[in-house]
Amino acid sequence: MAFDYINALLKKEVSRTPIWVMRQAGRYLPEYRQTRKRAGDFLSLCKSSDLACEVTLQPLERFDLDAAILFSDILTIPDAMGLGLHFVENEGPKFSKPLTTLNDINRLSKPDVGIELAYVSKAVSVIKKNLKGRVPLIGFSGSPWTLATYMVEGGSSKNFSKVKGLLFENPKHLHQLLNVLADTVIDYLNAQIEAGADSLMIFDTWGGLLNKESYKNFSLRYMSKIVEGIHRKYDEETIPVTLFTKGGSAWLEQIAATGCDGVGLDWTVEIGEAERRIGSKVALQGNLDPSVLYASPEIITAEAYKVLDQFKGQTGHVFNLGHGITPDVNPESMKVLVDAVHSYTKSK
Amino acid sequence: MAFDYINALLKKEVSRTPIWVMRQAGRYLPEYRQTRKRAGDFLSLCKSSDLACEVTLQPLERFDLDAAILFSDILTIPDAMGLGLHFVENEGPKFSKPLTTLNDINRLSKPDVGIELAYVSKAVSVIKKNLKGRVPLIGFSGSPWTLATYMVEGGSSKNFSKVKGLLFENPKHLHQLLNVLADTVIDYLNAQIEAGADSLMIFDTWGGLLNKESYKNFSLRYMSKIVEGIHRKYDEETIPVTLFTKGGSAWLEQIAATGCDGVGLDWTVEIGEAERRIGSKVALQGNLDPSVLYASPEIITAEAYKVLDQFKGQTGHVFNLGHGITPDVNPESMKVLVDAVHSYTKSK
Repeated sequence: MAFDYINALLKKEVSRTPIWVMRQAGRYLPEYRQTRKRAGDFLSLCKSSDLACEVTLQPLERFDLDAAILFSDILTIPDAMGLGLHFVENEGPKFSKPLTTLNDINRLSKPDVGIELAYVSKAVSVIKKNLKGRVPLIGFSGSPWTLATYMVEGGSSKNFSKVKGLLFENPKHLHQLLNVLADTVIDYLNAQIEAGADSLMIFDTWGGLLNKESYKNFSLRYMSKIVEGIHRKYDEETIPVTLFTKGGSAWLEQIAATGCDGVGLDWTVEIGEAERRIGSKVALQGNLDPSVLYASPEIITAEAYKVLDQFKGQTGHVFNLGHGITPDVNPESMKVLVDAVHSYTKSK
Repeated sequence: MAFDYINALLKKEVSRTPIWVMRQAGRYLPEYRQTRKRAGDFLSLCKSSDLACEVTLQPLERFDLDAAILFSDILTIPDAMGLGLHFVENEGPKFSKPLTTLNDINRLSKPDVGIELAYVSKAVSVIKKNLKGRVPLIGFSGSPWTLATYMVEGGSSKNFSKVKGLLFENPKHLHQLLNVLADTVIDYLNAQIEAGADSLMIFDTWGGLLNKESYKNFSLRYMSKIVEGIHRKYDEETIPVTLFTKGGSAWLEQIAATGCDGVGLDWTVEIGEAERRIGSKVALQGNLDPSVLYASPEIITAEAYKVLDQFKGQTGHVFNLGHGITPDVNPESMKVLVDAVHSYTKSK
């Protein structure tokens, strides 16, 4: 495959630094907001393969991006496990049947991904077909720990007191839950590969809440299991996998040691430092502060160059923000960023 | 002075590891909730020196704590600057007149701490008098960067897009604001020292949102200015100052280099590692995960020992949580923690 995005993750030669942006298909785009309105609620948008395809492709029409990412939600797996996912305006995701007792955990079993999550694989194949080989398609999942936090808390949380109470008081039950989730994520990501995903990302949004020991035992261990369990070679292609723990910059060495291909970085670590620490082992994805996109074109360009200048290698860098693009960014600013990254690295 | 808390910060000999807990006077205590109800709203509680004294002393009646901390809010300074602080139930602090234009920043000036913030100094002296020398009293302030985030956002924020937009687009105006705030914080903390504070803390709740360069320029620089500007020697006593940047574990060396006495640690860094990095220069405060307090007495004790075992020195450690105690903790669990820390280190 000749895609810069895939080559960068495999540390092969690239024609320029590839870029994609977390939440590139999202609320900052007026055309997304229109499709979302047509879909009704957010979950209906995720569950319709045609609409999910439509929004996945929208940013590619505007910007010279190097990858598309499946439009979906990280909480599809708990929903398929029967927890009743729904979205409350301005409050984010909620579960109508969160895990409130140890018995709730005991009763939980791996869903049949081919049935209960068939809509996700279908979306992948529809998107893949409509991409027509333009750019590679990234599939994804939440990390087991991140999924567990929502399942135990019942939604977003401020202190994560329930799931962390479980961690300290009943670690065996938490491990049991994380094992079921890891096995499900493996099935889920393998199904996405079979449906056409060219690359995979695991989002560990809440790993940064943990201390080092808990991070290794309750988050990284299960991401490691997933890295081992997914089909890294499929149909004669290598499917690179990128792990991203937000707030995980203290543990980059441990993340790289899982055998993943890429490590996502938030903006609190300098990419030059991350390259010195783990750049010989893995590719790096990141890590511009998303808030830079509120600034003028000149500053966006200068800040993008600062990230690019810190990275010393010829390849092994996928440019991205350190977190998802925020809903109130002007789409023109995204264009400035994408073009700055490409023009600066093409002439390198 | 013979207090273990002060001695630990000055790296002098201690009889046992001292402990205090962020938000030790707070909602997890039923007696606090009663006083709060009597006060009416939260700000009235802060502004009444008698009620502020009452809640400051409440945890000392229950637990064998080594320090009291002034009961107040970090946003008293912006309130004194005319921004109109108020609290909305379940939404946290709000300003009725946030800084929305560059002109709002230009118009801002340093309040007269002796007048507009006299109620804080008065609370300090009332608490000091009522403590009768039992334990030292900690005064505090928010860091200039943390105060600025609330003043520009108008309250708490999810993405901090306004203040970070200002940072990237108009850094000069942000520096102007931070300078006024730093000068005010210096006056404010010196007034607390004059009123009887034995030690000071600066809470940089939102420094961890920044990248390394921005952290140094927009947060640490102004905390450094404060460390230099406050009366570290007063009335023949040394007044130790502790800086705490939540999410700042990547920058411990830079924080220690300000010349502060203590560095606060959140739970994401191992205290043994922090000691190796900066323990020869400063004392360390922290860093048990507050969620441990949801576990059983046996686990609370074991987790407290883990923190204590990692710290190798004989002194230079003030035990604390890595963040404030959460409102739904059972007060009995706090007792278990305090007693575990004392009994384990007394026999050391």
